[in-house]
Amino acid sequence: MNTNPAHTQWMARLGMQHPIVQAPMAGTSTPQLAAAVSNAGGLGSVGIGAYGAEQAEQHIAQTHALARRAFNVNLFCHQTAAADAQREAAWLAHLAPEFERFGAMPPAALRSIYTSAVGNAPLQAMLLRQRPQVVSFHFGLPEAAFIAALRGAGITTLACATSLEEARQIEQAGVDVVVAQGMEAGGHRGCFDPEQDRLLSTLALVQILVRQTRLPVVAAGGIMDGTAIASALQLGACAVQMGTAFILCPESAASPAYRAELQSDKAYDTGITAAISGRPARGMVNRLHLLGRDYGPALPGYPMVYDAGKALHQAAAAQGSSDYAAHWAGQGAPLARAMPAADLVATLARELAQAAA
Amino acid sequence: MNTNPAHTQWMARLGMQHPIVQAPMAGTSTPQLAAAVSNAGGLGSVGIGAYGAEQAEQHIAQTHALARRAFNVNLFCHQTAAADAQREAAWLAHLAPEFERFGAMPPAALRSIYTSAVGNAPLQAMLLRQRPQVVSFHFGLPEAAFIAALRGAGITTLACATSLEEARQIEQAGVDVVVAQGMEAGGHRGCFDPEQDRLLSTLALVQILVRQTRLPVVAAGGIMDGTAIASALQLGACAVQMGTAFILCPESAASPAYRAELQSDKAYDTGITAAISGRPARGMVNRLHLLGRDYGPALPGYPMVYDAGKALHQAAAAQGSSDYAAHWAGQGAPLARAMPAADLVATLARELAQAAA
Repeated sequence: MNTNPAHTQWMARLGMQHPIVQAPMAGTSTPQLAAAVSNAGGLGSVGIGAYGAEQAEQHIAQTHALARRAFNVNLFCHQTAAADAQREAAWLAHLAPEFERFGAMPPAALRSIYTSAVGNAPLQAMLLRQRPQVVSFHFGLPEAAFIAALRGAGITTLACATSLEEARQIEQAGVDVVVAQGMEAGGHRGCFDPEQDRLLSTLALVQILVRQTRLPVVAAGGIMDGTAIASALQLGACAVQMGTAFILCPESAASPAYRAELQSDKAYDTGITAAISGRPARGMVNRLHLLGRDYGPALPGYPMVYDAGKALHQAAAAQGSSDYAAHWAGQGAPLARAMPAADLVATLARELAQAAA
Repeated sequence: MNTNPAHTQWMARLGMQHPIVQAPMAGTSTPQLAAAVSNAGGLGSVGIGAYGAEQAEQHIAQTHALARRAFNVNLFCHQTAAADAQREAAWLAHLAPEFERFGAMPPAALRSIYTSAVGNAPLQAMLLRQRPQVVSFHFGLPEAAFIAALRGAGITTLACATSLEEARQIEQAGVDVVVAQGMEAGGHRGCFDPEQDRLLSTLALVQILVRQTRLPVVAAGGIMDGTAIASALQLGACAVQMGTAFILCPESAASPAYRAELQSDKAYDTGITAAISGRPARGMVNRLHLLGRDYGPALPGYPMVYDAGKALHQAAAAQGSSDYAAHWAGQGAPLARAMPAADLVATLARELAQAAA
């Protein structure tokens, strides 16, 4: 068990009663979900990386209105890939027969649909206005002045690492806590540079970070119940981050199709693909996974590929198909349980107490 | 903690004092290593899949002579791939420039260098003669009569699973214990059919098997110290299997080059490739990993690819290069420690007791 007070004081400061962070899951998390988790004594999160400035601010304000305790706001800190008309056209041509299945046309070009938090002064100003108690970073780190401004405002910072190199950068940047994301985690791999991804598991990564950095480590990936939380704490993590476990909560934004798939045998079949968004991410295998597998050329970057995937999903969804839906899920997906978020946090806390006894 | 007596009685029956199985690691394990681990209260293992009948029998007899307690003999239960002259010639042509680097010629053809235990009557007869107390299966299961004969002789049986489907087959076959091998493990993936590999992590797989089978589960992959053992037991495993942790023991057959690499930064860079043997296996990335990565056609099967890889390694090794050596290692490799096997078992047991306290 991690009994290092330097590793748990950030949770005490935030008033967390349980060492459980609900993963941000942009597109699936909601103010209701985050608030329910925080109000139940965990740390709820909202992911705003997919929103424009105004929508992001509304989302945070709405969470403030519902949450009686601290919550976390997650930012995408990717380096936006350079536009590459040739790559984009080739990928759209590869997808053209799929659009055709639904009588639709591929878009003429791909847009960079998400703005990175890196160098994003309006986003920084908005966060200092809204003052969430916690801000977390995915896909990298923002510039030093951004981190300093958040910390200066008393905001606790978390950042995702998939390797020792990334964790060392996070430590040097003065971020408070590292989220150690194993390859079994659902959703986007947090790697700073996906080309360098060594796909470390939660078990291997947590062991290495606990022994080779001084940061408090939050274990993320494959953790589905209180027994697994106890196991991660035993390994030296100070807390866990769980995403897939919260998808079936009524407060999440998951569609009925997403929920049904997660409760089917498809939950046993997750895989990592960059063909949905342009960055590697784990979800239940769909047609885009397969289309990516047999595609020879390099994919356009993130988030341009996502623009194509979303257009294709919309064309299909209009005719009742979820063949291209981004149903992110981790390898523990078959163990997800459907219950209100507050009940789930209470259940996890009870299981953790039993396991630790 | 796993307190189900049905899950621990096999260890009590064998006289194991610690819930630690040393992984078989064909080529790296030795009678000395297995005996040292067993004599220290763990379960030592020898892997005989790479040996002919006579050498295998000598190996077991030698282990019997050194071990005062139960030890495990591991068998390869692969379906031998059909010969495919065209695939083999294409792969050899791809490797020809590599042979040329060392002034050598690729072999004219590839041989199936290892005999499977499946349907192997002489092997079965030899095991019933030698009577190791434990026999474990990798790459699948032998026929029912083989398993029944071993069990009839009072031999405890273990089998490796990488998925729920494989674990269910193991359970139905009446095997006593399942080894849940996560994707972080070093060496060969135990998948029955590598085409079906979903690369589950130890954490995800152990959780699923503990909840969805009745078998005692031995957690394998990424476990490097007593804290990690405690963590796996917390998750519901009855024991752990550790391989990479034992490579640096003086009793292992690891070469000086292998040991040096494992103690260098290369230990952070492991990957899974089929280009060394024909079946996916994890090791420190070498030139064969890279040669496999940029190779378009299908590889010849296992163990034909291994025949090519070994020939290339021999040509290179004769000139002092270990560019093609099969330096298997798991993702926890940077945490491996060099000490005699008995000291390592004692250290792990002490760390486990401290972690569990």
